[in-house]
Amino acid sequence: MSESSTREKLLQAGKTLFLEKGYNHTGLQEIVKSAGVPKGSFYYFFASKQDFGLAVLKYHLEIFQPFIERQLLGDKEVAPLQRLRNFFEVGCAQLESEQCKGGCIVGNLAQELADQNETFREHLNIALNHWQSLFTACLKEAQDKGDIPGNENVEVLSQFLMNGWEGAILRMKVTKSMEPLHNFLSVLFEKVLSS
Amino acid sequence: MSESSTREKLLQAGKTLFLEKGYNHTGLQEIVKSAGVPKGSFYYFFASKQDFGLAVLKYHLEIFQPFIERQLLGDKEVAPLQRLRNFFEVGCAQLESEQCKGGCIVGNLAQELADQNETFREHLNIALNHWQSLFTACLKEAQDKGDIPGNENVEVLSQFLMNGWEGAILRMKVTKSMEPLHNFLSVLFEKVLSS
Repeated sequence: MSESSTREKLLQAGKTLFLEKGYNHTGLQEIVKSAGVPKGSFYYFFASKQDFGLAVLKYHLEIFQPFIERQLLGDKEVAPLQRLRNFFEVGCAQLESEQCKGGCIVGNLAQELADQNETFREHLNIALNHWQSLFTACLKEAQDKGDIPGNENVEVLSQFLMNGWEGAILRMKVTKSMEPLHNFLSVLFEKVLSS
Repeated sequence: MSESSTREKLLQAGKTLFLEKGYNHTGLQEIVKSAGVPKGSFYYFFASKQDFGLAVLKYHLEIFQPFIERQLLGDKEVAPLQRLRNFFEVGCAQLESEQCKGGCIVGNLAQELADQNETFREHLNIALNHWQSLFTACLKEAQDKGDIPGNENVEVLSQFLMNGWEGAILRMKVTKSMEPLHNFLSVLFEKVLSS
């Protein structure tokens, strides 16, 4: 097994376990066992559990961000509000395929670690701010096209919708139904982003 | 020390520790130490950690629900949308006094346990649904008074605002600022609940 594939197996196992059980509740033994790699390999690649946790976050963002940035929210062929809708609908399809379990690993780690680990908090804050900036860019474009009123503060709106989405995902996990996500989208597009 | 005060000390210590560190990451030893009670007393009052965790949730709800139901959301002397605003403003003041730490214990436990523990999930689901039903009642009253349009689905709206509030609290923890909560309230009252 190559070095890169061992490292990636550890990251993938970590991501799955963190989504299932959270960061603190996942043990190193469990991670190496789930990755199917020798225990010693963990400390060959990662200096500590925190180092590993931050690498899992980076790994997740590196997979998802290019798809979100270029194909979903950055696709200039598609009208900006439709791009936002596409983003949420792709998210819904993914969450539904996972039977409303797991949710958003960034939101989960934020909930768990924001108060406990300042390094994690900073990394999660940057990730969420970056993600929000993609929403802001879409909303700004929608505003320039006249699809939302010119007097709206798009920074405030984009934060509102980013956090509302995370809240709807959290509720989905509790109700084990897609209803919170569908209700989020219906109010968002009918009330919040109406012209 | 009376039985009831020992039990209450344990519940209060559990609530504080769960808010700080989550459920799984809090040990029994830590709970009894923080409560300042003998270790043996834990199993005198609670059959298991889960039993204790559910009792902490019930203890929290029993303290907050009467205040929320009777004084904030149920105060018929105050216009229904103003009651909603009062509810959120009291919440903001509380969260600010806690330096944007901790957040909402119901949301935190939901994030952590909804996928891991079906008994917890059911209890958290009931608590959130009950809380949402108080929002629904306020919105229905606002609708009857003509403060929000008659064609709005108040069930959908109340879920949207409940989950948006939880999402804003989550983001507050990550940004360590009140901005997400203020932005939530501004969009909520200017866009979502406008007549």
